[in-house]
Amino acid sequence: MVNDHLVIRWTAAETARAIERGAVTCEQVTRACLARIDEREPKVQAWQHLDPEQAVAAARALDRGAPRGPLFGVPFGAKDIIDSADMPTEYGTPIHAGHRPAKDAACIALSRKAGALLLGKTVTTEFANIHPGKTRNPLDPARTPGGSSSGSAAAVADFMVPLAIGTQTTGSVTRPSSFCGVFGYRPTYGDMRTAGVMEASGSLDTLGIMARSIEDIALYRDVLVGVRPEPVAADLPALHVGFCRPYYWSRLAASTQNLLEEGARRIARGGMQVTDFALDEEFRGLEQAHKLISGFEMARNLTWELEHHASRISDQLRYGRLKDGLECSYKTYSEMRALCERLRAKLHRVMEPYDVVLAPAGDEAPVGMDPVPHPWVYMAWTIGYVPTVTLPVFKGPSGMPVGVQVLARRYDDRRLFAAARRIYELLK
Amino acid sequence: MVNDHLVIRWTAAETARAIERGAVTCEQVTRACLARIDEREPKVQAWQHLDPEQAVAAARALDRGAPRGPLFGVPFGAKDIIDSADMPTEYGTPIHAGHRPAKDAACIALSRKAGALLLGKTVTTEFANIHPGKTRNPLDPARTPGGSSSGSAAAVADFMVPLAIGTQTTGSVTRPSSFCGVFGYRPTYGDMRTAGVMEASGSLDTLGIMARSIEDIALYRDVLVGVRPEPVAADLPALHVGFCRPYYWSRLAASTQNLLEEGARRIARGGMQVTDFALDEEFRGLEQAHKLISGFEMARNLTWELEHHASRISDQLRYGRLKDGLECSYKTYSEMRALCERLRAKLHRVMEPYDVVLAPAGDEAPVGMDPVPHPWVYMAWTIGYVPTVTLPVFKGPSGMPVGVQVLARRYDDRRLFAAARRIYELLK
Repeated sequence: MVNDHLVIRWTAAETARAIERGAVTCEQVTRACLARIDEREPKVQAWQHLDPEQAVAAARALDRGAPRGPLFGVPFGAKDIIDSADMPTEYGTPIHAGHRPAKDAACIALSRKAGALLLGKTVTTEFANIHPGKTRNPLDPARTPGGSSSGSAAAVADFMVPLAIGTQTTGSVTRPSSFCGVFGYRPTYGDMRTAGVMEASGSLDTLGIMARSIEDIALYRDVLVGVRPEPVAADLPALHVGFCRPYYWSRLAASTQNLLEEGARRIARGGMQVTDFALDEEFRGLEQAHKLISGFEMARNLTWELEHHASRISDQLRYGRLKDGLECSYKTYSEMRALCERLRAKLHRVMEPYDVVLAPAGDEAPVGMDPVPHPWVYMAWTIGYVPTVTLPVFKGPSGMPVGVQVLARRYDDRRLFAAARRIYELLK
Repeated sequence: MVNDHLVIRWTAAETARAIERGAVTCEQVTRACLARIDEREPKVQAWQHLDPEQAVAAARALDRGAPRGPLFGVPFGAKDIIDSADMPTEYGTPIHAGHRPAKDAACIALSRKAGALLLGKTVTTEFANIHPGKTRNPLDPARTPGGSSSGSAAAVADFMVPLAIGTQTTGSVTRPSSFCGVFGYRPTYGDMRTAGVMEASGSLDTLGIMARSIEDIALYRDVLVGVRPEPVAADLPALHVGFCRPYYWSRLAASTQNLLEEGARRIARGGMQVTDFALDEEFRGLEQAHKLISGFEMARNLTWELEHHASRISDQLRYGRLKDGLECSYKTYSEMRALCERLRAKLHRVMEPYDVVLAPAGDEAPVGMDPVPHPWVYMAWTIGYVPTVTLPVFKGPSGMPVGVQVLARRYDDRRLFAAARRIYELLK
């Protein structure tokens, strides 16, 4: 009998292999995760819904059936804006308390088709926006885990599950992954279907993955795109890495700047060609564009809630982003979309010379529960539709994790994984 | 007391004005629509869900309350892939028979906020795809109404409601509008939120509107975008119209070609500058791209149904588009998306010289119930993200309606309405 302490530290791939060779059952894995949650949840509060009996029953059902799929028996969490047929989905708001969707979102159905076990639903900020949920940073309960996919990052970081699904409209996967010290991935825009996932902004939303290894990210990515899994390529040609100091570089903590610069030097010493480049001041326009576009879209998406339950929306959201969005004209909204399109093309041009790009993932998690600090770190890449992996490689001055983003051109996610793994080996 | 025969022929704007000046109550309008449906529904079968008592109760509630919004008391239908909190939503499949969403889709909530009354849910093809629903063409029951928004177009054409919402992934608003002889509109891609609307393909889906006047299209468009309604501009500068004979021109019926060419001559005689242009053979590549992209995406969106209810999916869909989609590799899928992006930019370049573009909307509705004939007519415009209005101006050799598309550059929907109204006056 393998001990729980070991089981919960396995990656998803290791877990699936252990189940396949009979070293452990699905039930044992699930019970190990549940025991960890039982111990740690009072402090971390990563879960919005978790029913241990239901989870054990699901694991036993897997053990009774024929093994199937590359994630057979692997427990995962899903952000609670993602519909699940057998668990409530509450979108981070009391308005939808106890809501039971009729079917699984595409990403949950694809996970289950691959044999994975939905352990529970992880905490999201209110409507995946700015008002925090209850989750704490597992490495320091006085600090935010980052949002909006707070519970997904915290649960993976705290060894409660090896995998979790999040979503990103600004930096909602990258930020909490960096703050909690896990691998985070946002795919090429449009690659993963969002059917059954609450539309936050709509034109900027993507799914994302939190995990504890690049291999797990790559494997789960293939599952969620719905294609045959392929191993991460081992034999890469010499990589040309663009080291990006974006226009907001001086707004980052000096310690973060130093960590990134030292990281770039280490990568160069590791044999990669590293070239500095910038995102110039023009990209600053995306901050206003993102605010207006996401506000405009979210205010319309939440029409039903505003008409029927306005008083149960947080003041922060209702009188902030939603009010701004409702007041934004179509002319401004469409001009902002056109601006995004122009700068997206420019981003693709400036990234073109590089196989991958190294860029900040933000400072360490601040003290307090603001779930969405430094949103400007993430906007250009999110609006640019390019895939990104956050690597948990640095520690900030308070000993908290500081991640680094590795980005690639659109549709080049598989090369991104191979490059990110090599860079991780150099920086870890 | 105004008589029902008159009431059902009013446009939405006329209906709202009549209610506002007290010429008629919301209840009288709703009862007139219900009487028309009672008479005609056995032949047309436009409705998937319609509860007359519920509709009358909703109308009475409006009459009791304070008038509100530009569509106060106007009945509308919504395609049954659009979630409604107080009516079933079944997505055109027995798998979801009786399904009750917890909240309204954004577009229904926005309609109700504007005072409109959801009369019922209109018939869709299975999952808004290729397998027909029960609806007949109201002008000839031996012919298809066109799909996938079959019931929406038929209900508006047959004077059952003045407005209906549809959706388009290929030509699912334009085609049935043309086949049934109503005004149809698909907005600039991304302008209307699809929260609460079943994701068909995802990357190509948009909402659309069916109505019986350009004014209604414009008014309802502003309501569904969620902005203050503005009247259709009356004073347009001289228009430069591009008359497009796309690469598939020779596949259209000779009669359709003649109608369009005569239309272009009439527009020129009406004082507009008309210039011929083509979509060259390169655009033919979009036919394969559309098939693979929509198949790839839909097959993943329907994972839950495929895993749990595969035998209740039509063979046509299951062994056709879904099978093709499941077999499509990511490499092919992403190449097809890149191709679409390149040709989208090319489409924008070739449309650039013109204020609006005149293009085919397809041949007249064929005999039989194939809901999706000549999909290649619509693909370039749909993939191109440009707004389109279909005008019901021609009759084909069988006396069935033949529409013409007027298209504009992205974000130029308001100019499109003004131009389409002027062109309609010249061609009607």
